[in-house]
Amino acid sequence: MIAKTPVPPYYAVIFTSHKSSDENGYAQMAMRMVELANQADGFLGMETARNETGITVSYWRDLDSIKKWKENSEHLQAQKLGREKWYTNYKTRICKVERDYEF
Amino acid sequence: MIAKTPVPPYYAVIFTSHKSSDENGYAQMAMRMVELANQADGFLGMETARNETGITVSYWRDLDSIKKWKENSEHLQAQKLGREKWYTNYKTRICKVERDYEF
Repeated sequence: MIAKTPVPPYYAVIFTSHKSSDENGYAQMAMRMVELANQADGFLGMETARNETGITVSYWRDLDSIKKWKENSEHLQAQKLGREKWYTNYKTRICKVERDYEF
Repeated sequence: MIAKTPVPPYYAVIFTSHKSSDENGYAQMAMRMVELANQADGFLGMETARNETGITVSYWRDLDSIKKWKENSEHLQAQKLGREKWYTNYKTRICKVERDYEF
């Protein structure tokens, strides 16, 4: 799905990751995080794809809503398990979307 | 691969797409565009993943290098063929990366 985002400016969080071989609990947690993000104030949408590399881009109204999402207690627990179990490495980039266009 | 990008600020182009069933010439063109982008002034790196949705994020030094890449003649031809043949729909977002962190 291509996220239906509003007219810019808005924010994007690009999360690029490589997974470990430990799948235990991952799919369930990933689904729960999507559900939780959808309820978060300022959440605008999400796009995700994975081959060897996984890319998840979530879209947000402003930096404050990203900060609150990062500090959500369930999400903090998911981040901790992610570092301990599911990811070998990842990078997160916080971006301001200045322009967009589509076909 | 997670792109090795410099300390922010820099720019990201998030290209999210759905492909048509026409694969004719696509893989060859995609490889050529990666090769060409790698030679472009201001190019910092690229990440890509595809399932039903494809996400390619390219990173750039500044808006001017993104503009020149968009207007590169071979890339213009690829964009035209993309709209005519390979993609049913896509969205491109131009973003300023303000912060990043990694694990």
